[in-house]
Amino acid sequence: MHRRPVLSVMVTFIFPMLLGVTLATGQQPAQTPAAAASTEMAPLRVPARIIPVPTDVSPELQKAIARLPTLREQGAPAIPKSIEGWRKFIAAGDNASLQQLAQLRKTFPVNVSSQVISGVKTYTVVPEQIAPENGSRVLVHFHGGGYLLAGGEVGIGEAILMAYHGRIKVISVDYRMPPDYPFPAALDDAVAVWKEVIKGCNPKNVGLFGTSAGGGLTLATVHKLKELKLPLPGAIAPGTPWSDLAGTGDTYFTNDYIDGVIGNYEGFLRGCVELYAGKHDLKDPFISPLYGDFRGFPPSILTTGTRDLLQSDTVRVHRKLRQAGVEARLQVFEAMSHAEYLLLFDSPESREAFEEIARFFDTHLGK
Amino acid sequence: MHRRPVLSVMVTFIFPMLLGVTLATGQQPAQTPAAAASTEMAPLRVPARIIPVPTDVSPELQKAIARLPTLREQGAPAIPKSIEGWRKFIAAGDNASLQQLAQLRKTFPVNVSSQVISGVKTYTVVPEQIAPENGSRVLVHFHGGGYLLAGGEVGIGEAILMAYHGRIKVISVDYRMPPDYPFPAALDDAVAVWKEVIKGCNPKNVGLFGTSAGGGLTLATVHKLKELKLPLPGAIAPGTPWSDLAGTGDTYFTNDYIDGVIGNYEGFLRGCVELYAGKHDLKDPFISPLYGDFRGFPPSILTTGTRDLLQSDTVRVHRKLRQAGVEARLQVFEAMSHAEYLLLFDSPESREAFEEIARFFDTHLGK
Repeated sequence: MHRRPVLSVMVTFIFPMLLGVTLATGQQPAQTPAAAASTEMAPLRVPARIIPVPTDVSPELQKAIARLPTLREQGAPAIPKSIEGWRKFIAAGDNASLQQLAQLRKTFPVNVSSQVISGVKTYTVVPEQIAPENGSRVLVHFHGGGYLLAGGEVGIGEAILMAYHGRIKVISVDYRMPPDYPFPAALDDAVAVWKEVIKGCNPKNVGLFGTSAGGGLTLATVHKLKELKLPLPGAIAPGTPWSDLAGTGDTYFTNDYIDGVIGNYEGFLRGCVELYAGKHDLKDPFISPLYGDFRGFPPSILTTGTRDLLQSDTVRVHRKLRQAGVEARLQVFEAMSHAEYLLLFDSPESREAFEEIARFFDTHLGK
Repeated sequence: MHRRPVLSVMVTFIFPMLLGVTLATGQQPAQTPAAAASTEMAPLRVPARIIPVPTDVSPELQKAIARLPTLREQGAPAIPKSIEGWRKFIAAGDNASLQQLAQLRKTFPVNVSSQVISGVKTYTVVPEQIAPENGSRVLVHFHGGGYLLAGGEVGIGEAILMAYHGRIKVISVDYRMPPDYPFPAALDDAVAVWKEVIKGCNPKNVGLFGTSAGGGLTLATVHKLKELKLPLPGAIAPGTPWSDLAGTGDTYFTNDYIDGVIGNYEGFLRGCVELYAGKHDLKDPFISPLYGDFRGFPPSILTTGTRDLLQSDTVRVHRKLRQAGVEARLQVFEAMSHAEYLLLFDSPESREAFEEIARFFDTHLGK
């Protein structure tokens, strides 16, 4: 049925206004063999452009986007060149994030306590009222931060938002991280907590979620549970998951400079990869879950935005889940950069994203 | 709960590597009041960039993308300045498309016949074998082409792909178009055909679908059926719908020059808007269905790609459907430009997109 590629199609079929088509004659543009060969896999040179602040987003997101030009002018911070430099980078970042966390906690009051589960530090977040349907349910949370940042209490912001919007108990895993604990420490901690959490409860009543590195760890954990033949969660919610540490997604390039939250792969992310994965194969599914086998995965909801540098990391996982026959949903927010549904926690978009995720868990988790 | 916008959040929370954050001190960058005011809604100036051919797409899509640099160098065709010029533009475009259609028909053999339904020209596409579950079902198709192109037989390519992949009967509406028949002729034709098709069959067994302008017309038709209190279809599949002729979507800018299929809003699309909408309000929901009320819409599946100029037109409709409580699915293909699942009809992505849409119709249409 699909005997050969049709390369000349896109230029004229239905949309003949395409660049390079000589419409006056209806002919294809002339192209010398040399020119054709030289551009066989040639990159696209995109000229400088001006991108206005979008109009169809919340005032909160508009104002965040409007700050971009000033931030860009000031340039990106230097990436550390030593382990000691990374420790300072991490400490400074987490310190700044703690100030935001205080504001988040004031806005979304919940009860937080800390426990050690199977030797792993965790935080339990309980909303003021647990919804009746969530009485026997719990969510396990993995924070983001490139497998470097947001250790300790700094990482519980998303757990609070989920507990608050979903009226459900959340256990946030303070998994070990580099420089001291590279892969597979984080994954080992995730699995250790999982094993303990499902003791004495139905695993189908338990969901996993997280954003960015936490979304990647959510997916990697399910791959690992499959390998270990352990029970799987009832549903998962990987938010803009860092699913491909090899950095092959197209939006790493198309949304470079447009994403307002993270720099391109060659900056901070490359540093994270080196510290987390070391010499491991970056296409190991436990490091880059995109490369795993998604058959048998639980129902999944994925969240991203049109400006997200990791939109490709998200939509490629969504396609793989669908190809594997998994119930998988995708939500994409207008003009949203990486993880902004979490960072702009007091915006309508954030509320909408978490409420949608909460509905998905409610539909698919056991009771 | 959501008392005030938190504007300073995104810079430091969780991802403090953000541009402009002085990590050494953990402080916010200094900003003079004047600078802050001047950048309040300032556009982002994105520098020139180089975007490689993506690796995680089919060879067919890779080769289409690899042709972009050459096409770009040759520049876009001039947009006509007169009605007579538009007639030539349309004729040349449709003539070129006809050659592609011949190839499509060879690859996907189906039976095609033409009928006039309620005074509207239509084509009925019947696959060689109708699936047993589709015996009492039919899909109504609206072709794309900016409400200008693909009139007559040229427009049936998508109907053939849907009939073939879905093993279902499709009626493709050859609705009237400018220059001679501007809005609301197309919508009137869509409604006229709908009224006739549902005579003697259960409307819930009938689906609507289309791509680009055809996706917009799919949505506008449902808005109109609601207004007329006519029965609604059982499910719809608007593919990268042109839902906002006012052109406010963020990806009109972020994917400008990156989308390989259509130029920016100011070129061909602006011409389409002027010829189709004339002096009508561009935010009229029957012209730009994004601005309508989506409550009560039938289950909907939307398709787009990460490079799609109309990704914002697609994902904003998806959010509005979800906000209205409608069962709505979104599929986004890696590195795909506007409507390429249709244009690259002999690619794995095309097959995957149409098979997913077919499954959606099978799940939601009556039998």
